[in-house]
Amino acid sequence: MSGRLKLSNFAVSLDGFGTGEGLTEQEPFGHAGHRLHPWMMATRFWREMAGQEGGSTGVNNEFLKAHWDGFGAEIMGRGKFWTGAGPIPDEWQGFWGAEPPFHTPVIVLTHQQRDDLQLEGTRFLFRDTTPQEALAEARELAAGLDVRLGGGVRTVREFLEADLVDELHVVIVPILLGRGQRLWDGQEALEDRFDLRFEPGDDGIMHVVGTRRRA
Amino acid sequence: MSGRLKLSNFAVSLDGFGTGEGLTEQEPFGHAGHRLHPWMMATRFWREMAGQEGGSTGVNNEFLKAHWDGFGAEIMGRGKFWTGAGPIPDEWQGFWGAEPPFHTPVIVLTHQQRDDLQLEGTRFLFRDTTPQEALAEARELAAGLDVRLGGGVRTVREFLEADLVDELHVVIVPILLGRGQRLWDGQEALEDRFDLRFEPGDDGIMHVVGTRRRA
Repeated sequence: MSGRLKLSNFAVSLDGFGTGEGLTEQEPFGHAGHRLHPWMMATRFWREMAGQEGGSTGVNNEFLKAHWDGFGAEIMGRGKFWTGAGPIPDEWQGFWGAEPPFHTPVIVLTHQQRDDLQLEGTRFLFRDTTPQEALAEARELAAGLDVRLGGGVRTVREFLEADLVDELHVVIVPILLGRGQRLWDGQEALEDRFDLRFEPGDDGIMHVVGTRRRA
Repeated sequence: MSGRLKLSNFAVSLDGFGTGEGLTEQEPFGHAGHRLHPWMMATRFWREMAGQEGGSTGVNNEFLKAHWDGFGAEIMGRGKFWTGAGPIPDEWQGFWGAEPPFHTPVIVLTHQQRDDLQLEGTRFLFRDTTPQEALAEARELAAGLDVRLGGGVRTVREFLEADLVDELHVVIVPILLGRGQRLWDGQEALEDRFDLRFEPGDDGIMHVVGTRRRA
């Protein structure tokens, strides 16, 4: 059985923005800053990854653990790999340091030609291709495990529009960003394809979980 | 003490639309139809108002009861009183029949000159004025009770932007309308002025409750 494509722990503001305005290398979420993710950084799982003690162990922590469990590949858009102006610089190796947290192949969708990038445990493959073909390759690479849809906003929308997503998990943070990139744009009547339900989180956030109905 | 201005039981889709596209007299919510309000019509309170038996008695019902309790006046925009094309027709008396559910004075904000309309228990006063002045008059009419902000979307946004709202209660329905009028547009950083929290509802909906911080 081929792996499922899952979006998980994707944070949006109450007004639906998955990232802000004015993205740069230094501010990958633009004017949103860190405001979409304090709930994530408060979890035990996150703190352990960062070599810190403590952290919350409730619903948010469970969701975050699931984000890193059972995946054999990730697909991300250029907008997650590089948020600066212009093309990806030759020397750029992503936001995640010498040992990125993925530990799987990661397909980066970009029109830019770029050689594969092998870091400790993670290989980035740059592809100028369709969502369908990217998913086919990611599934092959995942060898039966699931495929994570990593973002950014435009990439998630494209995969939802192409009806390639099997499970989605979005986190609503009670802030209003007012501007940026809207996750739900162009997704009219998504509820016809997905069972959508709310699940209360810790730290004042709300989880939205969606499972694609079988045809 | 003057009455508080409260928005309550205002339903939006997951993508933030408080009403759809293509509003008419027959379809006041446009292509949204009744899809923003089944949770409301399922409550015991609503069913009792409609002369029906049964209905849910949980959180949603409590919120809906609060919507009708303790108010001495309502303010609504033209977009709630009349959703057809062009000006309000002379003979139009609103969507609520001979005995509207308000049972208080209702200020209708419109640039159109129109005589007061007295129906059974409810007097509609048509005013071409600012949010501030409308609220001042509504507070006087409410005689110490609270003032309900009745909608539609644009009117709610105007009052939020003018920082006149004391309490807000929005209901998120897990559907994606894709188009229409967005409630949260232009409300960047509302969380700086309001404590916003989620409260799980019945029937798969989510309540968002906001209380304005005291200056």
